[in-house]
Amino acid sequence: MNLRNYFSNILKDNQILSDKDKMIDYETDESGIRFSHPSVVLFPENTDQVSSILKVCYANNFIIIPRGAGTGLSGGAIPLKPSVIVSSDRLNKIIEIDEQNLMVIVQPGIITGEMQTAVEAKGLFYPPDPASLENCTIGGNVAEISGGPRAVKYGTTRDYVRGLEIVTPNGDIMRFGGKIKKDATGYNIKDLIIGSEGTLCFITEITLSLLPKPKYESDLLIPFNSMKDAALAVSQIIINRIIPATIEFMEERALEVAYKMLGNLMTVKEGKAHLLIRVDGQMKEQIEKDTESIGNICMQNNAIDVYIADSKPFKDNLWKARRALHDAVVEMSIQMEREDVVVPPSKLPELIDKIKLLEQQFKIMIIVFGHAGDGNVHINIMKTKENSEYFDKHLKELTDNIMQTAVNLGGKLSGEHGIGIYKKQYMSKVFSDAQLILMRNIKKSFDPKNLFNPNKILP
Amino acid sequence: MNLRNYFSNILKDNQILSDKDKMIDYETDESGIRFSHPSVVLFPENTDQVSSILKVCYANNFIIIPRGAGTGLSGGAIPLKPSVIVSSDRLNKIIEIDEQNLMVIVQPGIITGEMQTAVEAKGLFYPPDPASLENCTIGGNVAEISGGPRAVKYGTTRDYVRGLEIVTPNGDIMRFGGKIKKDATGYNIKDLIIGSEGTLCFITEITLSLLPKPKYESDLLIPFNSMKDAALAVSQIIINRIIPATIEFMEERALEVAYKMLGNLMTVKEGKAHLLIRVDGQMKEQIEKDTESIGNICMQNNAIDVYIADSKPFKDNLWKARRALHDAVVEMSIQMEREDVVVPPSKLPELIDKIKLLEQQFKIMIIVFGHAGDGNVHINIMKTKENSEYFDKHLKELTDNIMQTAVNLGGKLSGEHGIGIYKKQYMSKVFSDAQLILMRNIKKSFDPKNLFNPNKILP
Repeated sequence: MNLRNYFSNILKDNQILSDKDKMIDYETDESGIRFSHPSVVLFPENTDQVSSILKVCYANNFIIIPRGAGTGLSGGAIPLKPSVIVSSDRLNKIIEIDEQNLMVIVQPGIITGEMQTAVEAKGLFYPPDPASLENCTIGGNVAEISGGPRAVKYGTTRDYVRGLEIVTPNGDIMRFGGKIKKDATGYNIKDLIIGSEGTLCFITEITLSLLPKPKYESDLLIPFNSMKDAALAVSQIIINRIIPATIEFMEERALEVAYKMLGNLMTVKEGKAHLLIRVDGQMKEQIEKDTESIGNICMQNNAIDVYIADSKPFKDNLWKARRALHDAVVEMSIQMEREDVVVPPSKLPELIDKIKLLEQQFKIMIIVFGHAGDGNVHINIMKTKENSEYFDKHLKELTDNIMQTAVNLGGKLSGEHGIGIYKKQYMSKVFSDAQLILMRNIKKSFDPKNLFNPNKILP
Repeated sequence: MNLRNYFSNILKDNQILSDKDKMIDYETDESGIRFSHPSVVLFPENTDQVSSILKVCYANNFIIIPRGAGTGLSGGAIPLKPSVIVSSDRLNKIIEIDEQNLMVIVQPGIITGEMQTAVEAKGLFYPPDPASLENCTIGGNVAEISGGPRAVKYGTTRDYVRGLEIVTPNGDIMRFGGKIKKDATGYNIKDLIIGSEGTLCFITEITLSLLPKPKYESDLLIPFNSMKDAALAVSQIIINRIIPATIEFMEERALEVAYKMLGNLMTVKEGKAHLLIRVDGQMKEQIEKDTESIGNICMQNNAIDVYIADSKPFKDNLWKARRALHDAVVEMSIQMEREDVVVPPSKLPELIDKIKLLEQQFKIMIIVFGHAGDGNVHINIMKTKENSEYFDKHLKELTDNIMQTAVNLGGKLSGEHGIGIYKKQYMSKVFSDAQLILMRNIKKSFDPKNLFNPNKILP
C-alpha cells in the first residue's frame, strides 16, 4: 500500500519518500539488522507538521517510528513491521543560544557535534560526547540518554535537558520544563521521556543547559601490566577525591587489536592495559596539580610509565586512536555483538575478570574497552569466519551470562546504548513482573493504541 | 474507628500511635493548616513492615499519607480525610558511605543535615541545602526535589539520586537505579518518583552520589541602591562565565524587615538590595580570582560597596541573617502565603518589577527574597492585624496574578516547594487538559484505587 496520499495535504512532495530503493537506509541502524520495509518515510519541517502526521497515523492505526540519524546500537529506530518512519532530518536548527541563561534551544535533528561547535564559539560548553557525535543527533541522544567519556565528571545527556516540546502519539503538542534550572511543578514527565527510546512521543524541541567552557585540559596515557593494576589506580584516584573529566580504559585484547590495526596512531605500544585520562578546568594550576597527583597515584599502583600528552599531535593521536578502536574492532569480525553493561565503578575489575573467564569458557573472542570512571563497559563479542557456526549456537547463552554477571554485581543491562529490541529479552533479569507491568502502564498512558514504536524496550 | 488492630500483627505497640491528642502534630505541616484528623500514625522500622502496612491499607481501602519531618510548605503531607499516616521517623539510618564509588545509601527518615555532616567527616560533600536542613529528611527532599542556595552551581536533590527502593501502594517492593552513574535500562521510573510529592509510592531507601568537599570558599555581601542594579550585576557575572555556588538576593522590603528585626546580625546596613554570593572550589587561586572578578563586576554595575567576609564571625553572621530572615518575616505577619515561583534567571528583574506593581495595586505587603542565580524567588504575601479582612478577600486574585506573571515570563509555579494542595488550583496555568490527563493516568499506573495521598498536585 502506498501511503503517500495520506500525507500529501500536510507535506510537500519532497518531504515524502516512498520509493522502495531509497527507503532501504531507513530499514536499519548501526546494528545493520533488518526486519521489515518502511511503508513511507516523512520529513516534517516544523512541530505542526509532526502533529498533523501523528494525527493521521493515529486515526488510521499506522505504526510510527521516530528516527534521528540512525546511529543507534540497540535497534530502537528499526521498523519491525511496515511502518511510517518520521525523520528529524529537517528539524535540524539551533533556535537560540541564550548567553544570559547559559542555555541553547535546538530542534531534535541537529548533529550533536555541530551544536557543540556552535556553543563553543561563544565560550560555552555542552559536555556529553558520544563516540558518534559527528553523526548522531541531539534528539537521538535524548531518546537514548547518550553519555560518552566525559560522563565521569559531567554526567550524561539527561543532566543537561531542561525543557522538551513533544508531540504525543495522538498528535497533542505538549511542553515540559523550560529555560529553568529548578522545577517542582507537577510530575516529572520530562525525565520520563528522556531515555524512553522513541516509544512514548516525538520530541520536537529541546532546551539544554550549558557550562562555561573549561580553559585548560591535560591528557595522560598510562600503560599497566595488568587491568587489575589499572583498575586499582582508578579507584585510588577517586578515593583521593580527584574527578577527571574522563577515565577511559583499553585492556589486553583491545590493545592487541589496536597495536595490530592502528599502526602509528598508537604512540604508546607497551603494556596490557591502558588508561586514557583527561583532566580539565578553569585554572592552569588546578590542571597541573591534578595531572601530577594522577601520575603519582598511577606510578604507586605499578604503572609502567606515565605519558603526558604535551604536544597537540600526541594529544590528537591519543583520542583518534581511542575513537578508531571501535572501527578497528568491527573490521576484525564478520559480525559483532555489542553489550554496554554498567556496574558500580568499584566493581569494574571483578566484571572484567568474569568476562575473561567467560571468554575462556565459551572460546569466543571478547574485546573490552570503555569508561572506567563510571563503570560503563563496552563488551564486543566477535563473530569471525572461523567461529561462525559455533558463535551462532552459543551467542545467546554467552550474552545471557554477561548480563547476569553485570546484574549480580549491582549493575544494569545498558549504560548508554539503550534496550531497543536487542536487550529486551534480558529485562526480566533487572525488573520484576510488577515493575514491567508498571512500565507497560506508563507506555499505555502515552500510547493507548500501542502504535508508537511498539514492541521495543519491554519484553 | 480505631485502626490499631489492623496493624498489631505487623508492628509493636510503640510503633502505632492512635491517641487523638498525640496525633495532632501529624495533622499539618509547616503551613499550619488542618483539614482532618489522622486515623492512626504508624512508624515502620524496615521495608518489609512498610510493605505489609500498605498491603493492609490497600485491601481495606484506607487512605495512606507518607510523612517525613513535616517541614513541607505546600501541604503534601496533610491528611484531607481520615487517613493512615506512615511516618519515616524510624527509617532513619545511614546504611553505607561508599568512598570508592562516592555514594551514600540512606533510609528516607534521616535528617538531611545529619547525613551531610556524616559524609563531610570523610571529605565528601552532598550539596543540596534546603533552608530547613536541620529538620527536614532526605525522603522529603526527594519527594519535593528540594533545592537551596547551592543549586546555582550544584543543582537540586534530583541531580544526586542514583537509586531508589520503593513500596508501591499495593505493597510491592521495587528497586530502580543503584550505585551506578549511567543507566539506560528501561523507562526512568526513578526520576518520575523524584518530585512526585509522596503521591505515587513510599520511598524506603535512597542511593545518593557525592562530590569531593570543596576545600576553599569565599563569601561576598554586596549592597546596591536598587534591585535592578543587583540583577544586572548577576547577569554580568553569568555572562562572564563565572558560576558561584550561591547567588542569594534580598530586596527592599526584605531588607527593611531584616534591618528592623535582626539587629546586629545585619553586619551591613546600607542599600535597598543585597546580593550574598559564595564561591567555592578546590583551589585557593580560583577562589581568589573569582572573588576579585565578582567584586569588579559588581562595582562596575553600581554596587555601593563589596564586603568580603574574611573573618569567621562575619561569615557566620551573613548566613545566620539569611536563614533568620524567614522567621523574622513570619513574625511580622499573622499569616503568610508563601509562593516560590521560578523563572529563567534573566527574567528575574522583570518578575520583581511586576510583583512590586502588584503590591501597589493590591495594597498588600509582599516580601521577596531568594535565589537570584537560578531564578527561584520566595514571595511572601503578608496578612497583618490591620489588613486581615481585606487580605482574605483579595488573596486569591493576587496569588493568581503572581502565578500568571511567572508563567508569562516562561516560568513555573514552584521551584522547590512543590504543588501539594496549595498550588494545585493553578496547575492549569502551566499544563493543558491533555497534560493533566496524562499525569492522572501516570498516577493511576501506580495507584489504581487512588488511595495513596490522593487529591494532591492534580486539580
